Amino acid sequence: MSETQNLRVVLASRPIGRPKTSDFRFEHAPIPQPGDGQLLLETQYLSLDPYMRWRISDAKSYAPPIGIGEVIVGGTVARVKTSRHPDWREGDIVLAESGWQQYALSDGSNLRRLDPAIAPPSTALGVLGMPGFTAYGGLLEIGQPKPGETVVVAAASGAVGSVVGQIARIKGARAVGIAGGPEKCAFVKNELGFDAVVDHQAPDFAQKLAEACPDGIDVYFENVSGHVWDAVLPLLNDFARVPVCGLIANYNDGPEGGNGPDRLPRTMREILARSITLRGFLVYNFTAARHDEFQREAAGWINEGKLLWREDVVEGLERAPEAFIGLLEGRNFGKLVVRLAK
Amino acid sequence: MSETQNLRVVLASRPIGRPKTSDFRFEHAPIPQPGDGQLLLETQYLSLDPYMRWRISDAKSYAPPIGIGEVIVGGTVARVKTSRHPDWREGDIVLAESGWQQYALSDGSNLRRLDPAIAPPSTALGVLGMPGFTAYGGLLEIGQPKPGETVVVAAASGAVGSVVGQIARIKGARAVGIAGGPEKCAFVKNELGFDAVVDHQAPDFAQKLAEACPDGIDVYFENVSGHVWDAVLPLLNDFARVPVCGLIANYNDGPEGGNGPDRLPRTMREILARSITLRGFLVYNFTAARHDEFQREAAGWINEGKLLWREDVVEGLERAPEAFIGLLEGRNFGKLVVRLAK
Repeated sequence: MSETQNLRVVLASRPIGRPKTSDFRFEHAPIPQPGDGQLLLETQYLSLDPYMRWRISDAKSYAPPIGIGEVIVGGTVARVKTSRHPDWREGDIVLAESGWQQYALSDGSNLRRLDPAIAPPSTALGVLGMPGFTAYGGLLEIGQPKPGETVVVAAASGAVGSVVGQIARIKGARAVGIAGGPEKCAFVKNELGFDAVVDHQAPDFAQKLAEACPDGIDVYFENVSGHVWDAVLPLLNDFARVPVCGLIANYNDGPEGGNGPDRLPRTMREILARSITLRGFLVYNFTAARHDEFQREAAGWINEGKLLWREDVVEGLERAPEAFIGLLEGRNFGKLVVRLAK
Repeated sequence: MSETQNLRVVLASRPIGRPKTSDFRFEHAPIPQPGDGQLLLETQYLSLDPYMRWRISDAKSYAPPIGIGEVIVGGTVARVKTSRHPDWREGDIVLAESGWQQYALSDGSNLRRLDPAIAPPSTALGVLGMPGFTAYGGLLEIGQPKPGETVVVAAASGAVGSVVGQIARIKGARAVGIAGGPEKCAFVKNELGFDAVVDHQAPDFAQKLAEACPDGIDVYFENVSGHVWDAVLPLLNDFARVPVCGLIANYNDGPEGGNGPDRLPRTMREILARSITLRGFLVYNFTAARHDEFQREAAGWINEGKLLWREDVVEGLERAPEAFIGLLEGRNFGKLVVRLAK
């Protein structure tokens, strides 16, 4: 790759169902030059997150879809390569939203300076960043776990789920994780210290989940849906809270969902019979009220060794499409980030 | 009917799907005699309510199912015929839970004395009773309508829906009702004073509902589900609140719901994309916190002419099964009560 060229990934076609690598196109463009008041960012890490599946679809959503030919959005950790902005200097490490590309211009807005002495900068994309705050906000604002209650979270080895379970334990609740396969399950139980873990790939998954939750479920942090929801639903206690954070099992579905049977009536009936609360949220809902508090608390928990994380690092922007497709199928193990070649 | 016989209605068989009159059996039994500390109640009005469909099924629910051969439960307005209890006198008019029968014994617990000077006693089964409090609690605790917001309620001419819309207006919100057929729609708009009404039987119902809600829907009081929910869902605004009070369209379904397509993924996606809250409730959730306040406020609104109601009175316990089956199909018009022959 030439030093004067900016490699970037644009949306080639809107995926229907499972994205294909051909839905993404690599382009080379000249490295842009910052004008007065601008700075040039060089991407070090690109975050890959499930929400991007929505953004490349044309489903009605919280944000407009990415257009064909546009660079895919994404959170990044970047180094300021050139600055013509008074507040920023060459060499500053920042959290940015510069997307799937090597270089990007910025006017300095929406950047946050990172201090590598506090934590590795890539954690700003994970445990100390959007996924960590998603877990924190959704669990504490909506889930409101009380000591002794049972909190269940799926994708428990992932960027959000791992933080949900650990904070649940910090708050005195019992954390039950759901993960795919023995390796992830062992990590969730042994490294993260969840009270129990259940493998959703097991043929007797629903039965095992019930056994892991002898007192039922008080909080279910929903980031999967699909057959996990079907197993959780009959275990929810009276007044259970369900923060709806993600639906990764559905993201590749079309707008009208799957075939029958119709699972809505059963869900509605259980919501009614047991006074259950389902509440969807976007992490931005909580930013004003709780982001500073999250940063402070999470850094403290990390310092005390109470909040652990795991990264799944993919080398090179060239591998981003394939890694993203794998993310939607649960093939990553930990927070998925792409490290761009120096 | 003999003056010494107690006519009562017991569950003959558990209905599958739509109940049939043969699922109910009439029995005659001797009128029970009160012992010390007991009183004999003579039913004047029996309330018929959708929740009874659940109680005669064996679905897991908030209360155990009624057994085969047992008297069907139900709220009643009754007259104390004989008292051997120091707190009650012959002729007292009380709110009771004595079920589908002419006579019942009571030990005085769970009775409330009614004052016919304040309002007709049958209102204790409707606007001033469980349905009215259901509307009040669900709307104010969960729906939390703000002035200028749009509140939509189905079954808007019914016991709960009519109160939901009127309280929404009292609180400064815009009330949009959904009802079945031109007669009920006219009543909701012209008598109850809703801002708009839409007929769910119209072929262009979804379109008409959208036109009636130009600013979207902030609160949807769910007591129907089915195709009404499908029309409401795309109109819900960011942060919309959905108190889930009833699902009358599903009550005759089996435990696993209907055929496909599967409507759950779309519902979950909208909950997530627009930070929607769905919360199931039972009226008992709010009793301790708000029942006294409800009684006081509702009586005040009735006095000021701000809270109107309509009763659909069926004459004779013999007609209760048929009237109840009609209730599940929306054939009643207003709060359905059975007046027992003198």
